Amino acid sequence: MSNKKQHPSALHEKPGISPPEIISSIAVAHIKKFRKIQPSPKELVEGILAGNITALSRAITLVESTNSDHLAKANEVINACLAHANKSIRIGITGVPGVGKSTFIEAFGKYLTSLGKKVAVLAVDPSSTISHGSILGDKTRMEELVKDENAFIRPSASGETLGGVARKTRETITLCEACGFDTIIIETVGVGQSETAVHSMVDFFLLLKISGAGDELQGIKRGIMEMADAIVINKADGDNIRKANLAKVEFNRALHLFPAKKSGWIPITSTCSAITHEGISAVWKTIEQFLELTKVNHYFFEKRKEQNQYWMLETINEQLKLNFYNHPEINQLLDSTKKAVQNDEISPFAAAQLLLETYFKF
Amino acid sequence: MSNKKQHPSALHEKPGISPPEIISSIAVAHIKKFRKIQPSPKELVEGILAGNITALSRAITLVESTNSDHLAKANEVINACLAHANKSIRIGITGVPGVGKSTFIEAFGKYLTSLGKKVAVLAVDPSSTISHGSILGDKTRMEELVKDENAFIRPSASGETLGGVARKTRETITLCEACGFDTIIIETVGVGQSETAVHSMVDFFLLLKISGAGDELQGIKRGIMEMADAIVINKADGDNIRKANLAKVEFNRALHLFPAKKSGWIPITSTCSAITHEGISAVWKTIEQFLELTKVNHYFFEKRKEQNQYWMLETINEQLKLNFYNHPEINQLLDSTKKAVQNDEISPFAAAQLLLETYFKF
Repeated sequence: MSNKKQHPSALHEKPGISPPEIISSIAVAHIKKFRKIQPSPKELVEGILAGNITALSRAITLVESTNSDHLAKANEVINACLAHANKSIRIGITGVPGVGKSTFIEAFGKYLTSLGKKVAVLAVDPSSTISHGSILGDKTRMEELVKDENAFIRPSASGETLGGVARKTRETITLCEACGFDTIIIETVGVGQSETAVHSMVDFFLLLKISGAGDELQGIKRGIMEMADAIVINKADGDNIRKANLAKVEFNRALHLFPAKKSGWIPITSTCSAITHEGISAVWKTIEQFLELTKVNHYFFEKRKEQNQYWMLETINEQLKLNFYNHPEINQLLDSTKKAVQNDEISPFAAAQLLLETYFKF
Repeated sequence: MSNKKQHPSALHEKPGISPPEIISSIAVAHIKKFRKIQPSPKELVEGILAGNITALSRAITLVESTNSDHLAKANEVINACLAHANKSIRIGITGVPGVGKSTFIEAFGKYLTSLGKKVAVLAVDPSSTISHGSILGDKTRMEELVKDENAFIRPSASGETLGGVARKTRETITLCEACGFDTIIIETVGVGQSETAVHSMVDFFLLLKISGAGDELQGIKRGIMEMADAIVINKADGDNIRKANLAKVEFNRALHLFPAKKSGWIPITSTCSAITHEGISAVWKTIEQFLELTKVNHYFFEKRKEQNQYWMLETINEQLKLNFYNHPEINQLLDSTKKAVQNDEISPFAAAQLLLETYFKF
């Protein structure tokens, strides 16, 4: 082995060439410039009223933002849209996973656009508060409808609370209506709380079911059945038709156990197939009959007024709580106070009083 | 006719004797003096811990007061009692009017005192928020129990909200326990919301029923059945025994449709008669079995901790709302804002924002 002493160190490196820019400074400048041209609320409103889908999407993004600057802008856009909204029918569709909500909405939506209607499909997805969206996230499940220029599909907003998610969907309805959509479909999964939220923003509530293997009523949440204006048994095709018809009779009997609805409407049970399209047009006919009845007896308008008020009070209650629990002093005290309460060192009421006094002092 | 001119006027009155004092000034002084000797929180606590019923009643009155001075005193008393409370079993009993709640509680309570237990019977009566009390108001319906020195019966507090009424009952439980009552029975009528409130303050929830004329399940609120740890069919005497047994089988089947309970307890259905006392001791045996199971698996203690936390958060939420809606500025704006929202002049969310900004400005 012949080591040459000339080598200064084993760690010596020859001067190399400098690496190329990973991020192009030209691109950065371009993006920054592009970012600056955020449309103003006025521009968004103009776009929405002209039926511009890009403007609609951007406004919805604004509504969904948690940035407080955006909140003021979003309220400005919504208020300007209000006078142009409200000329629609809002339909809530619920059903547990597996009943074929997406295929039903695809078939139903296509039928509506074939009648010349403009259809917006939104969602209130409670799971999105945790997993950032699942239902409607996969738009490919509605591949025909998504290509239809008279249809607009938007996945569920995400948020920290179901109330927050639902609020954003409720605001999105106003924007879609101002943009010319006359039929709004709100999808949700049949798991309980989210139905109540959806029920408080729609005119007509549709429960989607499939025929089961035996006891049709087992496991149904009565509260959800009680809200339904129609129960539609999906997948009534092929060998399933007989079973679906049996299920229809059973659900119909079950519906009659509930007290009469304030709307004067008697809930209807029917069967349909999202594959053969059998029974799809009948669902729309049912909704038309509902509209006729409830617009004549004014229930339709009264309910919308009530819903508006409900959302105002709900928003207030939610914000009051958020403000309290996000208060730095409360934040600091809450955990130790909870523990003291759990261990019976202080009564729940005295603890509440203590926290409230701290909060109101500031 | 001879009119005598001497008469000065037809309206003339002879000077009479002055009327006696309606309110005796001596009595007034006596009452005022008596009023001044309101026992201090410390005295009340001493009385309660010594098992003094007068002190207990006075402390409950303090808890039920809406006077803000009393609130601080009440919290002081309750906090001092906390360390001596909690050694009890809390039983919720619900059932629609007509199932014989009072006679059942009378028979059950007498059985418990015969075992050497000290029984307190309280109530959460939602109607008391409107009509100032109905259930338990008529103590004569429990004429045996009311004379029993090991029993204490207190009608429902009244208040503006169900939450408020329930809170006061929850605080009263602590006082009764510190006073030595080891079995607390909370009665409520089977109308919905109040059950949830009662459920969140008891260890064991008992649904009282009677056998009906046909369809046993019709009209039962599923939510209430879901909460029940036991369903007891009352009035199982005379000709009713067969029907009661049939009802028992039906309810038992219905209970099995519900998902398993977190407590690990399988709800039990039984029959009883408050008149023949048949089945009354079995109810207590069921509760003892429940206690054994849930104390071993720690559910009993975990649930109480959860309940404490629930009441803290509930009290906070209620107070936040009260503070908001009682704010003079909000009070003044609320009606007109509600109207504007109903008529679509402003979005529910912008309206909420407006009110919240007004509120937080002060």
